[in-house]
Amino acid sequence: MGILAKVYRQRLSLLNDLYQLTMAAGYWRHGLADREAVFQLSFRSAPFGGSFVVSAGLESVTDFLQDFRFEQEDLEYLATLRGSDGGRLFERRFLDYLRALRFTGSVDAMPEGTLSFAHEPLVRVQAPLIQCQLVETALLTLINFQSLIATKAARVCYAAAGDSVLEFGLRRAQGIDGGLSASRAAIIGGCAATSNVLAGKLYDVPVRGTHAHSWVMAFDDELTAFRAYAEAMPNNCLFLVDTYETLEGVRRAIQVGLELRRSGYELNGIRLDSGDLVELSIAARRMLDEAGFPQAVIVASNDLDEYEIQRLKQSGAKINVWGVGTRLVTAFDQPALGGVYKLTALRSDQGDWVYKLKLSEQAAKSTNPGVQQVRRFNHGGRIRGDAIFDVHLGWPADGEIVNPFTGEGMALDGCGEGQDVLTPVIRSGELVHRPLAVMSIRDSAAGQLELLDRRYRELSAAPLYPVGMERELYQLKQKLIADRDCLRSTGGHSTGRPTAGTDRRIE
Amino acid sequence: MGILAKVYRQRLSLLNDLYQLTMAAGYWRHGLADREAVFQLSFRSAPFGGSFVVSAGLESVTDFLQDFRFEQEDLEYLATLRGSDGGRLFERRFLDYLRALRFTGSVDAMPEGTLSFAHEPLVRVQAPLIQCQLVETALLTLINFQSLIATKAARVCYAAAGDSVLEFGLRRAQGIDGGLSASRAAIIGGCAATSNVLAGKLYDVPVRGTHAHSWVMAFDDELTAFRAYAEAMPNNCLFLVDTYETLEGVRRAIQVGLELRRSGYELNGIRLDSGDLVELSIAARRMLDEAGFPQAVIVASNDLDEYEIQRLKQSGAKINVWGVGTRLVTAFDQPALGGVYKLTALRSDQGDWVYKLKLSEQAAKSTNPGVQQVRRFNHGGRIRGDAIFDVHLGWPADGEIVNPFTGEGMALDGCGEGQDVLTPVIRSGELVHRPLAVMSIRDSAAGQLELLDRRYRELSAAPLYPVGMERELYQLKQKLIADRDCLRSTGGHSTGRPTAGTDRRIE
Repeated sequence: MGILAKVYRQRLSLLNDLYQLTMAAGYWRHGLADREAVFQLSFRSAPFGGSFVVSAGLESVTDFLQDFRFEQEDLEYLATLRGSDGGRLFERRFLDYLRALRFTGSVDAMPEGTLSFAHEPLVRVQAPLIQCQLVETALLTLINFQSLIATKAARVCYAAAGDSVLEFGLRRAQGIDGGLSASRAAIIGGCAATSNVLAGKLYDVPVRGTHAHSWVMAFDDELTAFRAYAEAMPNNCLFLVDTYETLEGVRRAIQVGLELRRSGYELNGIRLDSGDLVELSIAARRMLDEAGFPQAVIVASNDLDEYEIQRLKQSGAKINVWGVGTRLVTAFDQPALGGVYKLTALRSDQGDWVYKLKLSEQAAKSTNPGVQQVRRFNHGGRIRGDAIFDVHLGWPADGEIVNPFTGEGMALDGCGEGQDVLTPVIRSGELVHRPLAVMSIRDSAAGQLELLDRRYRELSAAPLYPVGMERELYQLKQKLIADRDCLRSTGGHSTGRPTAGTDRRIE
Repeated sequence: MGILAKVYRQRLSLLNDLYQLTMAAGYWRHGLADREAVFQLSFRSAPFGGSFVVSAGLESVTDFLQDFRFEQEDLEYLATLRGSDGGRLFERRFLDYLRALRFTGSVDAMPEGTLSFAHEPLVRVQAPLIQCQLVETALLTLINFQSLIATKAARVCYAAAGDSVLEFGLRRAQGIDGGLSASRAAIIGGCAATSNVLAGKLYDVPVRGTHAHSWVMAFDDELTAFRAYAEAMPNNCLFLVDTYETLEGVRRAIQVGLELRRSGYELNGIRLDSGDLVELSIAARRMLDEAGFPQAVIVASNDLDEYEIQRLKQSGAKINVWGVGTRLVTAFDQPALGGVYKLTALRSDQGDWVYKLKLSEQAAKSTNPGVQQVRRFNHGGRIRGDAIFDVHLGWPADGEIVNPFTGEGMALDGCGEGQDVLTPVIRSGELVHRPLAVMSIRDSAAGQLELLDRRYRELSAAPLYPVGMERELYQLKQKLIADRDCLRSTGGHSTGRPTAGTDRRIE
């Protein structure tokens, strides 16, 4: 059996960093496996110098969780792994435990297409500790990449300012579902269509494509090639005109366009893939208009991204449709979203919630404790700010919100009640939300982007969108940090003293 | 059925840009579908400012080609696609043709792990035109990404200068098989192991992992956490020491190491994941040595890449093992290899080979015509240069090689006969090469890298490795270009005149 077939029939429980499994074995060994825990997935800063992320990947996550189980062959593989003494890494009884393991926890998350901002939980998992740990890697892989590409697409579409953007990146995508999930995420972020046919089939999204240089090269000359194409597919004629000399190509496209019209079809347009896109598009537009093809579109491609599209538009390029490939599907200028998934609460022996945080010398790398929800405030047709609060502490009567780094009060005057952004997705392992069609998610993302003030959508040096923290949660976090600092300053004693989190028990 | 399950059971014939299918329909319509063609996959410049690529992905390609067919549901989907007039894009008879289509051609390629250089064919496909066209996108996706990551890994391992490098990137990888194929390619490029358990299972490569910060946070204090881990998995103890205060963490790791030793196990080492890795590793090394653990390794992670590893080593860091994640699996500083796949020869009506090239104003984007092989020359334990030649023209008696851009002679004195690099992989659709184990491919790549002069392995501004062209092929290319220029300079007449390629017939 070949590699591809082997990959496709895998369950993905082993799509995991080994340390998740060694930790799982440890939790199991110490009776901690079923201790209820909360982990939250968030990112520390928005990518590409922007202010926001368009969240995506949740449907893959729910699929993964519902399909989560270890097959006999997975367990047999794990039984082969050896430690430094040559002995087994995993004892047989633990593997038997894994055999019966399913995901039985709960998930709350931002629906796909939701705008999210730094430090907000995109996904919150509440489940037995061992389950939280074993699903971390796949959740990060699925959410990080798809959200990154949806965000990139939103930026490219912003630069295109209402023109259609087509996603053409499959050949430079990172593997098979790297390509598939990039196409899906690109549509969520606002692309009008993809060249990826399998994405079209699986996700019911529009696909586009006509011909490549190789078509032209396969014929004796360009005019013959265009005519042959028009004969074979008269209802899909958009000619790539730069195989030899671009404006000559435009002339030939027009010639075939006139022939097409005589047989009852219409030229869709032309595509430019090299050269000076400003000059060429202006000249081509004039030629098409003068020849009676004002409706024919001019598609441009060739290493485009949001910056290049903005530059071309500012330079007066007459381009209607933008084909964006490599730089979109790889998120070329920042090819990873640094999403993390951190323990924020764990029940004690007694069943109380103990809140947890991870400190870091870099304030932005310290995590927020608790079981969090995000409340979003609207005013005057714009979203004005978000506040992170703890679902056990609840939303306070005074509704006081502070800056999470300085503790200063944050005003969200006149914004009304606000709306909670995370919604229930899975309860006791069962799906409780209805997945949306990709095109509906796209509409939702577009609607939310409209609500975001333009300055937060600027392509570079966008200001930080205000994300505050409910005051009581903030004070709790400070107390946990202070206890930790106290421990640190007394230096070195290593047992007995409660660590961060044990001082605040709720429920 | 969920998205993931839907993806896994797909055949990948629709993993295609739509224009491949519309062109295929055109070739079929015009009786060109079965015209024999040659396409070659190559890249225009080595990534990351280096001189070479470690080729990878061929096994996925052979799997893809052998599995190539359209299922009923694929054809039904294609039948739903509509053109600009609302009519079908693909006529029923064409879809019937696709139903029976298999890959029946031949493939020659550089074996995985082979060093390759700009403009050399990595993969050469000789097949009916329609088949060549329909496999383009998948071949590019599979080879581009895996070769990119294998190359990145080779650079990281070069910087590590003999230390082990572990691939830890799954959580930031680009989708499921983005992660799987990245892990496989990272091993091919020289990594010693991966954290990705499914990659370990599928590709029989070493996996590594111990515990994360969340393990430490799940216990009341760090010492308790380390002891608990040691009890659960005494033969896999490598402690992450920076959850709270790094050197305190080292002290506790040593304490547990001494306890482990009393029970007959040995501390494997520690991992540093934050802070000043130079200072911390020097201090930790001293502490470990003084405590009687000179064999315990110090693993470092945290946004490492080849440049950071080189800097840390030059600064005297006492690190033995490098955990590299995000920047490796995404090829962070250049996340796409610009591989292209171009028509280089096509049989005429009469059955002659007509050589093809695509011109570009940028010389590096012009393709080379012909049915190419690469001959590699060794001397004094080093590879000294390559020459591209045409298999029909053959290797000339005088063995004259020229610079492909200037036509000046290139000396490969004393290099002997040379060795052809592309090997037969598929003949008439049947696999004729035996896939190698990933660890064998890794050995092969390592051996070839040893043969490459160190200056070509420099991390930045590496000189161009000499790749010449056999003189007769060079002259043929010049003639094709001249004919094309002639056509261009006379401007605008659009029929009748032979285009590039028709003037050289062989066989």
